[in-house]
Amino acid sequence: MEFLAAAIAVGLGAFGAGIGNGMIVSKTVEGISRQPELRGTLQTTMFIGVGIVEVVPLIGVVLAFLMFFSS
Amino acid sequence: MEFLAAAIAVGLGAFGAGIGNGMIVSKTVEGISRQPELRGTLQTTMFIGVGIVEVVPLIGVVLAFLMFFSS
Amino acid sequence: MEFLAAAIAVGLGAFGAGIGNGMIVSKTVEGISRQPELRGTLQTTMFIGVGIVEVVPLIGVVLAFLMFFSS
Amino acid sequence: MEFLAAAIAVGLGAFGAGIGNGMIVSKTVEGISRQPELRGTLQTTMFIGVGIVEVVPLIGVVLAFLMFFSS
Amino acid sequence: MEFLAAAIAVGLGAFGAGIGNGMIVSKTVEGISRQPELRGTLQTTMFIGVGIVEVVPLIGVVLAFLMFFSS
Amino acid sequence: MEFLAAAIAVGLGAFGAGIGNGMIVSKTVEGISRQPELRGTLQTTMFIGVGIVEVVPLIGVVLAFLMFFSS
Amino acid sequence: MEFLAAAIAVGLGAFGAGIGNGMIVSKTVEGISRQPELRGTLQTTMFIGVGIVEVVPLIGVVLAFLMFFSS
Amino acid sequence: MEFLAAAIAVGLGAFGAGIGNGMIVSKTVEGISRQPELRGTLQTTMFIGVGIVEVVPLIGVVLAFLMFFSS
Amino acid sequence: MEFLAAAIAVGLGAFGAGIGNGMIVSKTVEGISRQPELRGTLQTTMFIGVGIVEVVPLIGVVLAFLMFFSS
Amino acid sequence: MEFLAAAIAVGLGAFGAGIGNGMIVSKTVEGISRQPELRGTLQTTMFIGVGIVEVVPLIGVVLAFLMFFSS
Amino acid sequence: MEFLAAAIAVGLGAFGAGIGNGMIVSKTVEGISRQPELRGTLQTTMFIGVGIVEVVPLIGVVLAFLMFFSS
Amino acid sequence: MEFLAAAIAVGLGAFGAGIGNGMIVSKTVEGISRQPELRGTLQTTMFIGVGIVEVVPLIGVVLAFLMFFSS
Amino acid sequence: MEFLAAAIAVGLGAFGAGIGNGMIVSKTVEGISRQPELRGTLQTTMFIGVGIVEVVPLIGVVLAFLMFFSS
Amino acid sequence: MEFLAAAIAVGLGAFGAGIGNGMIVSKTVEGISRQPELRGTLQTTMFIGVGIVEVVPLIGVVLAFLMFFSS
Repeated sequence: MEFLAAAIAVGLGAFGAGIGNGMIVSKTVEGISRQPELRGTLQTTMFIGVGIVEVVPLIGVVLAFLMFFSS
Repeated sequence: MEFLAAAIAVGLGAFGAGIGNGMIVSKTVEGISRQPELRGTLQTTMFIGVGIVEVVPLIGVVLAFLMFFSS
Repeated sequence: MEFLAAAIAVGLGAFGAGIGNGMIVSKTVEGISRQPELRGTLQTTMFIGVGIVEVVPLIGVVLAFLMFFSS
Repeated sequence: MEFLAAAIAVGLGAFGAGIGNGMIVSKTVEGISRQPELRGTLQTTMFIGVGIVEVVPLIGVVLAFLMFFSS
Repeated sequence: MEFLAAAIAVGLGAFGAGIGNGMIVSKTVEGISRQPELRGTLQTTMFIGVGIVEVVPLIGVVLAFLMFFSS
Repeated sequence: MEFLAAAIAVGLGAFGAGIGNGMIVSKTVEGISRQPELRGTLQTTMFIGVGIVEVVPLIGVVLAFLMFFSS
Repeated sequence: MEFLAAAIAVGLGAFGAGIGNGMIVSKTVEGISRQPELRGTLQTTMFIGVGIVEVVPLIGVVLAFLMFFSS
Repeated sequence: MEFLAAAIAVGLGAFGAGIGNGMIVSKTVEGISRQPELRGTLQTTMFIGVGIVEVVPLIGVVLAFLMFFSS
Repeated sequence: MEFLAAAIAVGLGAFGAGIGNGMIVSKTVEGISRQPELRGTLQTTMFIGVGIVEVVPLIGVVLAFLMFFSS
Repeated sequence: MEFLAAAIAVGLGAFGAGIGNGMIVSKTVEGISRQPELRGTLQTTMFIGVGIVEVVPLIGVVLAFLMFFSS
Repeated sequence: MEFLAAAIAVGLGAFGAGIGNGMIVSKTVEGISRQPELRGTLQTTMFIGVGIVEVVPLIGVVLAFLMFFSS
Repeated sequence: MEFLAAAIAVGLGAFGAGIGNGMIVSKTVEGISRQPELRGTLQTTMFIGVGIVEVVPLIGVVLAFLMFFSS
Repeated sequence: MEFLAAAIAVGLGAFGAGIGNGMIVSKTVEGISRQPELRGTLQTTMFIGVGIVEVVPLIGVVLAFLMFFSS
Repeated sequence: MEFLAAAIAVGLGAFGAGIGNGMIVSKTVEGISRQPELRGTLQTTMFIGVGIVEVVPLIGVVLAFLMFFSS
């Protein structure tokens, strides 16, 4: 049951992070292709965004490794 | 069963946070690419928003670690 | 079973709060980027909205902690 | 089983309230950013709406606490 | 099983009422922001609508309390 | 099992009625905000519509109470 | 099991009727708000439509009552 | 098990018929509101369509009654 | 189990036929309301289409009756 | 179990064929209503398309009958 | 269990092939109705596409017959 | 259980390949109908795309046959 | 259980790769049909994209073969 | 159970990565086809994005291999 729990934690985290980051980066690419001179600002905002989105999935990854090695 | 509960709490939290933050940050990037002079205001609003969105998933993370170490 | 219940309460709450706040804050960001002079009014409305949206998930969080410590 | 029932009641209520309030408040923000002079009227309507939306989830919260303390 | 039944009745009712009222009130807010002079008529129609939408969920709430106290 | 059946009947009915009435009343509000002089006709049509939509859920409510008191 | 069957029959019927009638009546309201002089024709078509839509759910209601009283 | 089978047959049939007829009748109402002089032709096509859509659900109803009385 | 199989065959067939025929007939009605002089051609194409769509559900109906009477 | 398998094969086939043929025939009707002089070409393409779409569901039907008579 | 496996293989294959071919053929019909002189090229591309789409479902059909006759 | 595994591998592969190839080929047909002189380039890109999409489902087919013959 | 695990790994991978590659290649085809002179650049980007998308499903394929031969 | 857990971790990761990368790369291709002179900047942003998206699925892959070899 520990392995299944670890798999669910990582799998749902990867799914959520994929959708969230996909929306953010695709909008950033769209924004840069419209106004290239704002490249720095948009990428900075993008980095902040994907960093925040990745917080919970990465904690899920840590939790999954803890579950894996404690089994 | 404790591990499965912790995985569900973190997994659903990551999924919800991914969608919520994805919508907020992508709209912010879109807004900055339209009006770059509002960068500070939009980023401030974005930080408030993602902070509020992250509240419940982070509590879920705390709860998951509590479940993990109390098992 | 108590842990699973606490995880479901927090997980669904995080999911609902993520979608709800995501819609509210992204629209606020969009509104500010159109009319920056309404920043105060829009942010006030946003705070009221996210406060109302967070009510039920936070109660779910409280309930989850009660379940966790009463087990 | 009482805990699972309480979690489902609060979780679904938070999900429904999140979607419902998200639609209402985001439209209100959109409306205020178009016509700022209608701020009072729109916020009044918004308060009525979110109040009505919150009725059933809050009763679910009450029911969940009743279930929790009667177990 | 009585508690689970009560939770499902209240939870699905809150979900349905959230979506239904969300559509009604958000359209009302949109309508008022277009034509402010129709505020009274639109709010009257809105009150009738949310009243009708809330009928079945509130009966579900009553039923859930009956289930709770008869267990 | 009787309680679960009653909860499903009321819950699905509330969900269906919420979506159906939400579509009808929101379109009516939209129609009135466009042409206020048709208020009476539109509200009459709306009343007929929500009445028809509520028929089956209300029968489900009656059935649920029958199930509840016959258990 | 009879009660669960009756609940499913009524619940799915209410869900289908809610969606079907919601589409029909909302389009009728939209049509009347565009061309008020066609009110009679549109309402007649609407009545025919909702009558046809309600046929199968009402038979499901009848079947549910038969199931209820034969248990 | 016979009752559950009858409920599923009627319930899914009501769901399918609701969606199918909803699309047909709502498009017919929309068509009449655009060109009122084609009322007869459109209603004839609509009657043919809803008749065809209702064939399989009504057979499901017949089958459900056969299941009910043969149990 | 035979009854459940028959119910699933008829139910899914009714669902598929409802969606398929709904799309075909609603587009036909829309097409006639645009160009009434093509009524014959469009109805002929519609009849061919709904005939083809109904093939598999009707075979499912036949199969369901075979299952019913062979039980 | 044979009956359930046959029902799933026919049911999913009817569902897939309904959606596929619905898209093809509705687009054909829309195409004919725009350019009536291409009626023959479009119907030929439609016949080829629905023939290809029906291949797998009809094989599923054959398989279902084989399952039925071999039980 | 062999029969259920064969039914799932054919059923999901029919569902996937229905959606895939439906998109391809409907776009081809739309393309021919716009530019009839490209009929040959579009149909050739369509035949290649539906051929590729049908590969995996037909292998699923072969596999299902192998499962059926090896049981 | 081997047969069910093989059916799931082929079925999900057929579903994914159907959606993926459907999007690719339908866009190619749309592109050719706009600019017929690019027929060769678009078809080349299409062939590359469908080849890449088919890789994983075909491996799933191979795996399914391995499962089938090793049972 | 090993076979089922291998089937799920390959099946979900094929589903994800189908959707991902379908979006990428269809957009590439659309881009080439608009600006044929960018064919090389777009195809290069497409190859990079589909290569990245295929990474995880192909590892899932490898894992599935490992599971298959280790059973 | 270890194999099933590994399959779920890789499968959900492949699904999430497929959707996320599909959105990013397709938007990049669209951006390059509009403004070819920004090719370098857009591809750089794309590489950063797909790298971030792939983090969690690749960790899931590592975890799956750990699960596989520790069983």
